Amino acid sequence: MACPLEQALAVMVSTFHKYSGKEGDKYKLSKAELKELLTKELPAFGTQMDEGEFRRLMNDLDHDKDSEVDFKEYACFLACVAMGYNEFFRDAQRPRKK
Amino acid sequence: MACPLEQALAVMVSTFHKYSGKEGDKYKLSKAELKELLTKELPAFGTQMDEGEFRRLMNDLDHDKDSEVDFKEYACFLACVAMGYNEFFRDAQRPRKK
Repeated sequence: MACPLEQALAVMVSTFHKYSGKEGDKYKLSKAELKELLTKELPAFGTQMDEGEFRRLMNDLDHDKDSEVDFKEYACFLACVAMGYNEFFRDAQRPRKK
Repeated sequence: MACPLEQALAVMVSTFHKYSGKEGDKYKLSKAELKELLTKELPAFGTQMDEGEFRRLMNDLDHDKDSEVDFKEYACFLACVAMGYNEFFRDAQRPRKK
């Protein structure tokens, strides 16, 4: 059986394809597909964004400006979200100031 | 309960800290800690590398040249490994040429 980290990477890939195949290019996320992925798969993140924040995120992720998010752009995004989780994890470990 | 993708990101963070806290800077992976993480947590990747390949990988990951891998460098590395998984996933989906 695959190790937890290998399973985690496999989930990253399968989640991308679960949504990218719905419309347009099978290997890219359209704006609607990205929105659905974030809302359903990263609710702690996806449900907090309003339309303006979502447009800015889409713009930031879409490095090659083709109005879609490819796997590389998606993986870099998840790395940034993981960094946010990591900061949260580190702060929780720091002793509280009395 | 957290969604699979949220759990996957949490595994990425917890796996990093499982090894980074062993020696030296608690929030960075030394060369030995990275080698142990790759061998135990990404065996499909970690057990295939010889010493020279590992030194090159460490050099590629260590962008700020402090001989250690911080979380950002680690997250970017995992994004690249995920891209490799994704290519494998896409090729498997392509119809075989007869």
